[in-house]
Amino acid sequence: MKIIIIGATGTIGKHVVKALEKDNEIVKVGSKSGDIQIDMTDPDSIKNMFEKVGAFDALVCAAGDGHFGPFKEMTDTEFRVTVNSKLMGQVNLVLIGQHYINPKGSFTLTSGSVGEDPIKLASSLSAVNGAIDGFIRGAAIELEDGIRINAIGPDVVEESPNYFPFFPGHIPVTMDRVAQAYVKSVLGFQTGQVYKVL
Amino acid sequence: MKIIIIGATGTIGKHVVKALEKDNEIVKVGSKSGDIQIDMTDPDSIKNMFEKVGAFDALVCAAGDGHFGPFKEMTDTEFRVTVNSKLMGQVNLVLIGQHYINPKGSFTLTSGSVGEDPIKLASSLSAVNGAIDGFIRGAAIELEDGIRINAIGPDVVEESPNYFPFFPGHIPVTMDRVAQAYVKSVLGFQTGQVYKVL
Repeated sequence: MKIIIIGATGTIGKHVVKALEKDNEIVKVGSKSGDIQIDMTDPDSIKNMFEKVGAFDALVCAAGDGHFGPFKEMTDTEFRVTVNSKLMGQVNLVLIGQHYINPKGSFTLTSGSVGEDPIKLASSLSAVNGAIDGFIRGAAIELEDGIRINAIGPDVVEESPNYFPFFPGHIPVTMDRVAQAYVKSVLGFQTGQVYKVL
Repeated sequence: MKIIIIGATGTIGKHVVKALEKDNEIVKVGSKSGDIQIDMTDPDSIKNMFEKVGAFDALVCAAGDGHFGPFKEMTDTEFRVTVNSKLMGQVNLVLIGQHYINPKGSFTLTSGSVGEDPIKLASSLSAVNGAIDGFIRGAAIELEDGIRINAIGPDVVEESPNYFPFFPGHIPVTMDRVAQAYVKSVLGFQTGQVYKVL
């Protein structure tokens, strides 16, 4: 399979690459690194990437910026950082990518645990994670030709210790468990599912 | 109590007004009707409304535009109709309104059943309903001074027969049950809850 991985050198992405690269052709995409660079907030940049890659079998997105900050001072502009990148970036990967993906292909997006299990400072991520979970359910019933879509919703991961103070009482999930959730989505046969990794 | 109702003359809003107007002072807000007009997609318009109203005890939003259309042809611009109105409009009502609301006040937003129970043509609403449900959970743990926030997630309502063909097998919910969910949020004491009306 030809698999596009967005955020291929990131904390989660590099483990997804490792889990899938043995038996597949991986196209590594990042904002600054990888085989191809994209700006997820720009639909033209996304379209340009698909034009370069051509037909593919699976897309994994483990990227997307989010704004952390106190709710009391949050502005429309700050909230939209998360909306424009983690929400609309991932949505546009699917809206545009559906015209390039092979039949029976799959999209795997990333949401996260704070949509249902909120932490302080992350209200825009609570919203956008909920949005991704809703989006994949809505998209799954309209995608044709056996094309599937799922989301992975991890809790804080073990290789992000800088985030631990913001997740009191959360038990960081291992990178292997997170990577395997992406593998389950790409190689499995389900669609419209959110795989929580808690 | 002084209660701001956005979408006060809409299908749902007018029933919420009826259920709450006997014992409370209602400020009716709409895009074209009501005591005050606002453009929900414009944070300045929202701020202007709060400046006019002054301190208040509860805000109910039963408004917000959404785009319906086939996933196969959907564009970033179409998807953003829903994001800019139903999502960011409601988010900004809270981000800005938190600086005007009285202690122990409440915000009640509107999501909807298609975030979890998707229908065709409504992928942007599946996303945005999920976003609102996530948002109120994130905001609830950061709002101070006893200020609460909940969302109402109705299925298709009995007074919207034009939508029935898009909701096969859904049993339209009565306006009274929907209105009472808003009453429960405004007069009750819970926060961070999604009241589904199915």
